[in-house]
Amino acid sequence: MSAADRRFEALDGRTIYEGRIVTLRVERFRFADGDEVEREIVRHQGAAAVVVHDEEHVYLVRQPREALNDPDFLEIPAGRLDQEGESPQEAAERELAEEIGKAAATWEPICTYVSSAGMSDELVHLFHATGLSDRSADADENERIEIVPWPLADLDGAIAATRDAKTIIGLQWLRQRRA
Amino acid sequence: MSAADRRFEALDGRTIYEGRIVTLRVERFRFADGDEVEREIVRHQGAAAVVVHDEEHVYLVRQPREALNDPDFLEIPAGRLDQEGESPQEAAERELAEEIGKAAATWEPICTYVSSAGMSDELVHLFHATGLSDRSADADENERIEIVPWPLADLDGAIAATRDAKTIIGLQWLRQRRA
Repeated sequence: MSAADRRFEALDGRTIYEGRIVTLRVERFRFADGDEVEREIVRHQGAAAVVVHDEEHVYLVRQPREALNDPDFLEIPAGRLDQEGESPQEAAERELAEEIGKAAATWEPICTYVSSAGMSDELVHLFHATGLSDRSADADENERIEIVPWPLADLDGAIAATRDAKTIIGLQWLRQRRA
Repeated sequence: MSAADRRFEALDGRTIYEGRIVTLRVERFRFADGDEVEREIVRHQGAAAVVVHDEEHVYLVRQPREALNDPDFLEIPAGRLDQEGESPQEAAERELAEEIGKAAATWEPICTYVSSAGMSDELVHLFHATGLSDRSADADENERIEIVPWPLADLDGAIAATRDAKTIIGLQWLRQRRA
């Protein structure tokens, strides 16, 4: 298959469900050779997540993830891009305050990745934040979060302890950076 | 919030759409303190993916990902767990044959991760495969795939060139393994 064979154009589609978090669409596409395909696509506004640490700890959280039937899912601070006009870094700053109670002086983008390319357009913007200070913020009343300061010297243990994509990517990046 | 505050039980739910790839559900849960929440959940059968290399190249593919409007999305070989009774490793073996035309003598699990914990139960089973030999298999007629042998000495370049979660996780793991 050549690059030309992979070109496609969007034809039409229908919205199955427009929810609070996801919009489910069924869309049709046509390839250059005339073949048409139908795809189920979960449209999602995207998310921001932050690898945040001081000299001693990387700050993780435990929270319930109902879809996984897991009350203690371990992950880095993160949230959806659900505020009008807010940039990914601003969303990460907000989540850092709400979930960990910290502000960070230094922000660096790590990467922007696709969560599940076969079914969704969700992008996750991943940042590295250091230079921490306390910053109080109203926690989202629906969040049931435990802050987990994990020893920075044991990134291998944190990577083994989580099942979360953004957390694995972020902590593997930090391990490489510190190597 | 204590661990007890994060406990929940499933109440009921309804199926919004049952598709070929995803099933969209709206489900209700109740926490120990009585609070009830409603969640949009994308149920997915899961996937298997494989970091596969010989002494010179790691084998990636380019393929169209319609949800992302990207005809040339770069990723490791992978596929859904859509065959009855097939284990994750068997699915990875099948995809390796279909997409790359190879079999592997040595298989090692890397991890099983959650793609998008906030909205889906999708699990991705990630494997490391070596000891390659040629193995012909009928390619899925719907797959428009270009095999991309990427120099093993340039894993940093491959990590920078992809936006795909499973590929970043797998190649970061391989870079650490080879360090």
